Amino acid sequence: MFETAFTIEWGDCDEAGIVFYPNYFYWFDSTYQRWLRTCGLSQRELRSRFGSVTPLVNVGARFMGPASYDDELQVRAQIEEWGERRFRVDYTLAVNGTTVATGFEERAWAIRSENGALRGAAIPSEFKELMK
Amino acid sequence: MFETAFTIEWGDCDEAGIVFYPNYFYWFDSTYQRWLRTCGLSQRELRSRFGSVTPLVNVGARFMGPASYDDELQVRAQIEEWGERRFRVDYTLAVNGTTVATGFEERAWAIRSENGALRGAAIPSEFKELMK
Amino acid sequence: MFETAFTIEWGDCDEAGIVFYPNYFYWFDSTYQRWLRTCGLSQRELRSRFGSVTPLVNVGARFMGPASYDDELQVRAQIEEWGERRFRVDYTLAVNGTTVATGFEERAWAIRSENGALRGAAIPSEFKELMK
Amino acid sequence: MFETAFTIEWGDCDEAGIVFYPNYFYWFDSTYQRWLRTCGLSQRELRSRFGSVTPLVNVGARFMGPASYDDELQVRAQIEEWGERRFRVDYTLAVNGTTVATGFEERAWAIRSENGALRGAAIPSEFKELMK
Repeated sequence: MFETAFTIEWGDCDEAGIVFYPNYFYWFDSTYQRWLRTCGLSQRELRSRFGSVTPLVNVGARFMGPASYDDELQVRAQIEEWGERRFRVDYTLAVNGTTVATGFEERAWAIRSENGALRGAAIPSEFKELMK
Repeated sequence: MFETAFTIEWGDCDEAGIVFYPNYFYWFDSTYQRWLRTCGLSQRELRSRFGSVTPLVNVGARFMGPASYDDELQVRAQIEEWGERRFRVDYTLAVNGTTVATGFEERAWAIRSENGALRGAAIPSEFKELMK
Repeated sequence: MFETAFTIEWGDCDEAGIVFYPNYFYWFDSTYQRWLRTCGLSQRELRSRFGSVTPLVNVGARFMGPASYDDELQVRAQIEEWGERRFRVDYTLAVNGTTVATGFEERAWAIRSENGALRGAAIPSEFKELMK
Repeated sequence: MFETAFTIEWGDCDEAGIVFYPNYFYWFDSTYQRWLRTCGLSQRELRSRFGSVTPLVNVGARFMGPASYDDELQVRAQIEEWGERRFRVDYTLAVNGTTVATGFEERAWAIRSENGALRGAAIPSEFKELMK
């Protein structure tokens, strides 16, 4: 489980004064990257240590209420599902304790072959341990 | 049904040289806005003609293959489901005829009350006719 | 004078692994908004208290060195020039104490006329005092 | 000289209903990339043919009037200054024939050394010929 926060900036909102929704996925991805980092990992570290990348295969979000600029977005991420070759990160975003959005990113564990193509592979237990 | 296209720009891609995925949702939303426009509508027109907005309640995407900068993204949008107060736009994105992503936006039909709050309302048949 | 910080996220960088430069302006603007906020102001507060907006008329940036994802960007903003109807915010961005970029935003002080048009106006001393 | 166009999308605008200004730089950069492409070049082609990259050293923009969503932005780019190791691309952006913004990108011509560092180099005449 991992928690972080973002400030919603002027440029994140649209003419209606609320978050332009693709930005929620930017925050999902950023949260995942920050989580990796606190585990001593990163996209580059995944590549050098495991030879792997974690491409997205399926994502989604539900919006419960509006969030506006200057709001602090509290984000909680957790991995509830570990597939053999895929894992899903679930996100909950709240402003002042009220959930404004939930979402998920389903990522594959992939290894680059000698010819450059990506192929799925089993997630190493070391990675699972780190991201608990 | 509506079709449009976008060129994937340098700034849309990440360090891995492929589209940074939140941008797919930017293209979904942009496609919806363009579709409105070809129907003589727009966010502002919806407000003035119907007193309505169409906030997102649920979105998702699946990624089948990579897309890179300078690729032309061919987008097809259609509404297969009309709920009473909600509708879902389905998107298919292809590069050179190969589907790289699919996704959807589920939007509510909402009216602004006198106190400023949004409340769901039945989608007018005029809107359904226009977006066929 | 005002200081803040941003974490450079994966999605902020391009294929070359460094910040996609338009994002620097996003950080400039976000810094200005945060500064307003710590002064008890905001875009909305400017409108309600002064009837004003602060549209950009001229902006620029110089890039001295690369910044990459997970870097913490330390931002320092100050207003060195107060024109009668314009002011300029200067920004310095550093990573680990090394300046990676400098830039500025020149903003006009504008009032919305009854017909909706914007016209320049003298910057009130109250605003200057708050943003010292 | 090169010309292209962009449609301003809903997500490109802010709460004031006008373009969030960092997006102008996204369009500058995208125009440069499209220009390269029409000359049979690209970031990758520059790297493989010349061993070079063209990092930004100095950018700027002036804003003359508002541009809103659904506006078509007509962009004209030209290179008026060729330095020995730097060049400047000037941009003019118009909506319905009225200039809304001008700007420039000053780029360096840089070669990657064997140790990975970038160093400035003379711009080859072949590149200048292609981008006339």
